[in-house]
Amino acid sequence: MENFAEIVCVGNELLIGKITNTNAQWLAKLITTLGLRVRRITVIGDYVDEIATAVRESIERKPNFIITTGGLGPTFDDKTLEGVAAALNCELEQNDEALKMIEEKYERYVAEGRIETFELTPHRIKMAKLPKGARPINNPIGTAPGVSAKHEGTLLIMLPGVPQEMKAIFDESIAPIIREIAGDLTFYEISIDVRGIPESELAPLIDQVMNDNPYVYIKSHPRVSEKTPHLELHFSTTSDDSKVARQRVGKALMQISDVIQKKGGKTKLMEA
Amino acid sequence: MENFAEIVCVGNELLIGKITNTNAQWLAKLITTLGLRVRRITVIGDYVDEIATAVRESIERKPNFIITTGGLGPTFDDKTLEGVAAALNCELEQNDEALKMIEEKYERYVAEGRIETFELTPHRIKMAKLPKGARPINNPIGTAPGVSAKHEGTLLIMLPGVPQEMKAIFDESIAPIIREIAGDLTFYEISIDVRGIPESELAPLIDQVMNDNPYVYIKSHPRVSEKTPHLELHFSTTSDDSKVARQRVGKALMQISDVIQKKGGKTKLMEA
Repeated sequence: MENFAEIVCVGNELLIGKITNTNAQWLAKLITTLGLRVRRITVIGDYVDEIATAVRESIERKPNFIITTGGLGPTFDDKTLEGVAAALNCELEQNDEALKMIEEKYERYVAEGRIETFELTPHRIKMAKLPKGARPINNPIGTAPGVSAKHEGTLLIMLPGVPQEMKAIFDESIAPIIREIAGDLTFYEISIDVRGIPESELAPLIDQVMNDNPYVYIKSHPRVSEKTPHLELHFSTTSDDSKVARQRVGKALMQISDVIQKKGGKTKLMEA
Repeated sequence: MENFAEIVCVGNELLIGKITNTNAQWLAKLITTLGLRVRRITVIGDYVDEIATAVRESIERKPNFIITTGGLGPTFDDKTLEGVAAALNCELEQNDEALKMIEEKYERYVAEGRIETFELTPHRIKMAKLPKGARPINNPIGTAPGVSAKHEGTLLIMLPGVPQEMKAIFDESIAPIIREIAGDLTFYEISIDVRGIPESELAPLIDQVMNDNPYVYIKSHPRVSEKTPHLELHFSTTSDDSKVARQRVGKALMQISDVIQKKGGKTKLMEA
């Protein structure tokens, strides 16, 4: 079975188009770079049953990792932990380690003068109610801990929706685990800018070059242009040897650039 | 049954984090503004079986609309039509109307001097091979037509991934259909910027105000801040009377602003 990850983003703000899903892009890029394939991204709203359904469906596809974003905070609409508990058929349970993390955060806020005093109100304790058997993950910059839960072969990792907190937890605690699963695999990519040849004319050339270079994936991204045809050709490969990865992509790139130029098109290497 | 839509975005570039999914945000915002709820966004790669699975699962949730983006072009990795055909258990069939649209595009490109000549190559004809019974939708600025297919109570709408083409087809042909389904419903939203009160302290106040204003949805979006607590409170409602919608939101907003200010916090209306 191929190793892969899925991302589940929770938040009505994504479904009403209030914000762009930059969390999903950031995670997808990092996970891919770490050598693991992201197979699906699912975005759902702040509803326990919809979160539970999406997580259950994802579990059934047997990914190594499911990473969720959003819904870990103190307000009524932070429902990810409840949704995941429902997906795992278990109860929410107050976790002492998580409660201690939260308490220490508020103590520090008081020490720093950011708030005057604090109490462990029900809304704050809520952030420490984890699916039974789950564990909290240190949040280096925010209050709500991340959460991890194991279910059969899948590790569920729940991260906050605030991008800086999500990234800080990922970098500190999640990237090392993914790196271990992915081993030495490296993702390598490069793009060229192509002008003067329509995508439909390029299509059979791409077929040919991909056929000759079975480990290289080539994708064309057309650009709208008033004058001559314009598109980006993106080359990528995954290998456990970064030199091999670069050589593979380089060979495919040279081959297609040659044909494009012979047909009167112009190519230019794009900045990463 | 509540009316709702789902969005399915097809493209490896989204799963490797190469680009942000601005298409999903644009569509979600437009559909919401037109009065229809978007319940789920699914992102999958350029694989026929994964597209078919995602579309089949979406159909089972019985949305009024499934809008797909990406995968309609001439290259080997444009697989949306094949995936949708598999989901609908039907064959791909060359559609004369679609072929005529494509032919006319290339004729125009020749007339405009963008290309010298053209042939209806297999890669170009590919864009006219639609799931049996589906219909092409005029693409005002690109070559690949949009596609619509009816399946029981669901209208599937397939749009290209190039943002300008996706938007042009949506505005011209899809928005009017959604407007008709949604009727007079309007989505109304407004945000305030809140400083000086932590989200966890605000949480019970939001509960209270939402309880008193059952048609208003209030969501807090914390901001990372070095000094005082900082967040955005987003109010939204849907109504068939825009005046009622504004009044509802205004009442909830006044109520919560009062409490925040009494507790020493600061509020400020945010620009739309």
